[in-house]
Amino acid sequence: MLEYRPPEQDFEFLLFELFKVQEQWADIPAFADISEDITRAVLSEGGRMAAEVMAPLNQSGDEEGCTWLDGEVSTPPGFKAAYDEIAGGGWLGLSGNPDYEGQGMPKLLGCLLEEMFWGANSSLYLYGTLTTGASICIDNHGTEQQKATYLPKLYSGQWSGAMGLTESHAGTDLGIIRSRAVPAADGGYRISGTKIFITSGEHDLTENVVHLVLAKLPDAPAGSKGISLFIVPKFLVDEQGKVGERNGVVSGSLEHKMGIRGSATSVMNFDEAQGFIIGEPNRGLACMFTMMNYERLSVGLQGLGAGELAYQQAVRYARERLQGRSPTGPKNPDRDADSLLVHPDVRRMLLTIRALTEGGRAFAMFVGMQLDLGKYTGDEQAARFSELLTPIAKAFLSDRGFECAVMAQQVFGGHGYIREWGVEQIVRDTRIAQIYEGTNGVQALDLVGRKVLRDGGATLQELFDGFDLSTIDTCYREPLEKAFAGVIAATEHIVSRSAVDPALAGAISTDYLELVGYTLYGWFWARMARVAGEDAYGCAKQDCARFYFARLLPKVLGLEASVISESACVMALADEAF
Amino acid sequence: MLEYRPPEQDFEFLLFELFKVQEQWADIPAFADISEDITRAVLSEGGRMAAEVMAPLNQSGDEEGCTWLDGEVSTPPGFKAAYDEIAGGGWLGLSGNPDYEGQGMPKLLGCLLEEMFWGANSSLYLYGTLTTGASICIDNHGTEQQKATYLPKLYSGQWSGAMGLTESHAGTDLGIIRSRAVPAADGGYRISGTKIFITSGEHDLTENVVHLVLAKLPDAPAGSKGISLFIVPKFLVDEQGKVGERNGVVSGSLEHKMGIRGSATSVMNFDEAQGFIIGEPNRGLACMFTMMNYERLSVGLQGLGAGELAYQQAVRYARERLQGRSPTGPKNPDRDADSLLVHPDVRRMLLTIRALTEGGRAFAMFVGMQLDLGKYTGDEQAARFSELLTPIAKAFLSDRGFECAVMAQQVFGGHGYIREWGVEQIVRDTRIAQIYEGTNGVQALDLVGRKVLRDGGATLQELFDGFDLSTIDTCYREPLEKAFAGVIAATEHIVSRSAVDPALAGAISTDYLELVGYTLYGWFWARMARVAGEDAYGCAKQDCARFYFARLLPKVLGLEASVISESACVMALADEAF
Repeated sequence: MLEYRPPEQDFEFLLFELFKVQEQWADIPAFADISEDITRAVLSEGGRMAAEVMAPLNQSGDEEGCTWLDGEVSTPPGFKAAYDEIAGGGWLGLSGNPDYEGQGMPKLLGCLLEEMFWGANSSLYLYGTLTTGASICIDNHGTEQQKATYLPKLYSGQWSGAMGLTESHAGTDLGIIRSRAVPAADGGYRISGTKIFITSGEHDLTENVVHLVLAKLPDAPAGSKGISLFIVPKFLVDEQGKVGERNGVVSGSLEHKMGIRGSATSVMNFDEAQGFIIGEPNRGLACMFTMMNYERLSVGLQGLGAGELAYQQAVRYARERLQGRSPTGPKNPDRDADSLLVHPDVRRMLLTIRALTEGGRAFAMFVGMQLDLGKYTGDEQAARFSELLTPIAKAFLSDRGFECAVMAQQVFGGHGYIREWGVEQIVRDTRIAQIYEGTNGVQALDLVGRKVLRDGGATLQELFDGFDLSTIDTCYREPLEKAFAGVIAATEHIVSRSAVDPALAGAISTDYLELVGYTLYGWFWARMARVAGEDAYGCAKQDCARFYFARLLPKVLGLEASVISESACVMALADEAF
Repeated sequence: MLEYRPPEQDFEFLLFELFKVQEQWADIPAFADISEDITRAVLSEGGRMAAEVMAPLNQSGDEEGCTWLDGEVSTPPGFKAAYDEIAGGGWLGLSGNPDYEGQGMPKLLGCLLEEMFWGANSSLYLYGTLTTGASICIDNHGTEQQKATYLPKLYSGQWSGAMGLTESHAGTDLGIIRSRAVPAADGGYRISGTKIFITSGEHDLTENVVHLVLAKLPDAPAGSKGISLFIVPKFLVDEQGKVGERNGVVSGSLEHKMGIRGSATSVMNFDEAQGFIIGEPNRGLACMFTMMNYERLSVGLQGLGAGELAYQQAVRYARERLQGRSPTGPKNPDRDADSLLVHPDVRRMLLTIRALTEGGRAFAMFVGMQLDLGKYTGDEQAARFSELLTPIAKAFLSDRGFECAVMAQQVFGGHGYIREWGVEQIVRDTRIAQIYEGTNGVQALDLVGRKVLRDGGATLQELFDGFDLSTIDTCYREPLEKAFAGVIAATEHIVSRSAVDPALAGAISTDYLELVGYTLYGWFWARMARVAGEDAYGCAKQDCARFYFARLLPKVLGLEASVISESACVMALADEAF
């Protein structure tokens, strides 16, 4: 019963009215040929793929799950045909390097496509997103030969990608991994070790799986400065790019997960597998980080897609379900009851989901735009903005996505708790987005520790200085001005106090990330309200903006008060007293 | 891997130091004989039951689930033996009427036992809590003969209870149910209809199931004033109280649920089943409401138990898991990494769970105390307080319980998402507490519409007037005074504006409930800090109180701002624009 409809009208509004992408792209040589018609055609065909190919397999994929037999993994029925169609449509190489048969589309546009794919079927799309991640890594750090060998096959979907980072004792702390890479006589390496939680590590969708694996060289320094990155293909590749001999990498078992059950998550055993180093020795983590900005934004988009999917289900249910009467008198007097839409508290939930989803979409596109500007125009400020905003995009979008899924489930009442309607699946599937690709707590630490403290809050200040309050309606100016001031005051507090209170950053990082997140959404809502027209769609935007400012932005008051504290209240409790 | 340990030290602190129950109970004749030793013995034996009998079946119950075959339902392996042990220990009649072999224990004490049973195994305890609910209803509204027939068997656990309210089209809105009750020549009724989501509707734990079923008499007025309540036993009972002929009630199927999978939730088909009216015709909903205060508090306690269970797992994991280094330098220099406990953001999560759980426990006991005072001393004010606080207890405790479960899962990182550790099960199991027994949105409406608006906020004002700020430490007085003032201002806003803005109550009810909830927890934390001693346990209480005031109480700022709004921002969006 999970149905997915591409939110085309909102996409068009954001692209052509809020961000005016045609004007922007005209100034970027790589994008100058992307006309409005092409943009629409890409979105429309991507939307069809999401709604007609991917979404129908979402619930069945969860029910059927993946199966493991002697190291071989079968994906749920229908996944192979759907994957072939996605791959055949060129969707996996959308933002890929055109020199290697990628399509070189803007990330800003890619955001919308990714959001749809995630929303339609997160388990199925995971096979694609890991492939994209591997491509980005190889494109940025691979040798010419590695790029030529792997990129076209990854972009075409003929091969898929997987990232081997986590070990059972080492998740966030990759510095302590134990996987080993021993130089071999042939100039390559032999990789041994066990990796866990490997998304798409083994499956039956493609003829090869390209593992990017973190391991330590024999002479590696301890900790995170002694990690190298290797390409380890499931099947070795000959000089013509043909797959040959099976490599020493095999799935030991599948993880039994809360959700994304159509996604095959393996324990992967590497036993003297042939590996090819990518980038410099001991610089593997840095290579990973190149890819991270894209992947983290993508996981944020998973939350966004989940919010949209959840919203659509909840609205459909609220419209059809007759229960109780409006507080202002019957609206449906010929029937036993009015629809759920008459109930203010149900509207509150629907509007919350919508305000967070549409606000989040504008924010995500803004981040995508910074990535594009940084990459294609060398705009150094945009590059810094994208660095600053990436952890917020990953954590805030996925946290809000989960919140939206839970809220949509609540609209269904008891019907939301049973599997039939599928909304409980959205909750289970979305939960992982807060955890993988760096937990949201780690994102918050990255924001405060790496991004804000490192330059004393200068980039953040620049970002907010760029938001011109004269370009929004007067009714939103004062609350937003206060919110901006709150962010700046919180930032100054952190910067000035961290020197004497080293635990402070970690103690308040999560609340700080939320403070910035809600404030940024406020900016985008105010801008959307200003740009929206007078038609029904524009009026709806205005109404949602009012709701956001009245009911959601006030959260910044509590967050600001919470951030302006010392770490003592967090650190005081003795370890043994927990 | 889910382990449960009774939080005995906190129980003792709350009972004997914060609430000084021995002094209170000495003044209540029904409780005068309950010595401190008896209280400790009851808690200790209940704790043993929870930890040793119930908890070991929590994960296996989820894995195995219930099975349905031709109308018969099998519970997971081990449930029957455990249920027999719970029943044999007299735990199902703990707060029952002593005239019918109940044990007449205070609800305040029952709260702690229920919290443990819920925490140890919510699926298993559901068979008990429905039995308690049915007992309360029969005790309050049944005839002498009905009480004599059913209560001893329910208290002993020989029979179990089930509540038949929901139909597929009628959940919150019970006024539109379609089940029919037709008077029969024998003076009884014949009940026909289909009920869904019936917890413990059919199972293999007891020799009989006593259904309390809402249905409409042929001449019933429309809506909620035309609903009557009936006892419909699975097996008819003869005059000696022996079970005989099978009645016309059968399980049509089991619901496939997100969680509480060890609890059998049936579609129940009633086909001219013999029913016996309880209470007056057309007054069935009122009978149900008597029970509701107890059951709603119980569902709140489910959230509380989940919070405690989640906390224990997360602390255990955080202690054992070595990952990363402390921001103030290595704490465990001999090993590769420090424990998670050194990380401020992990501590923030653990302290949040603990502050919400221990604050919630004090609050729940306070509500239990009001129920006791109202019932056993005729204290009219306490009775009103219990009415006012019940929806808060149900919604706020279960919302926070879910939040705590999700947060504990986050502490586990990726390991929290796989089934092995059991923490994802806590999330799935706890989610239902926000939905059943009246969704939390309905609780918020009950609070604002029925409890606050009905007396213009007078009872709420009385409650807060009774909290004497001179009995807390000075450092907490100002923030709490402000929070109290915020609650009163919000209440006045709602009372004064609702006359002209009929949708207002529903538009702000959820935020209002949270505002009151966080403020009440603030009161109990301040009181606990004042009463706590200087030992390690007392110092931990002080630390948690500081954390609560620094990091959680500030949420009231945003909530207060959100409540002080009009309904327009919620009601403006046109139905078709959703």
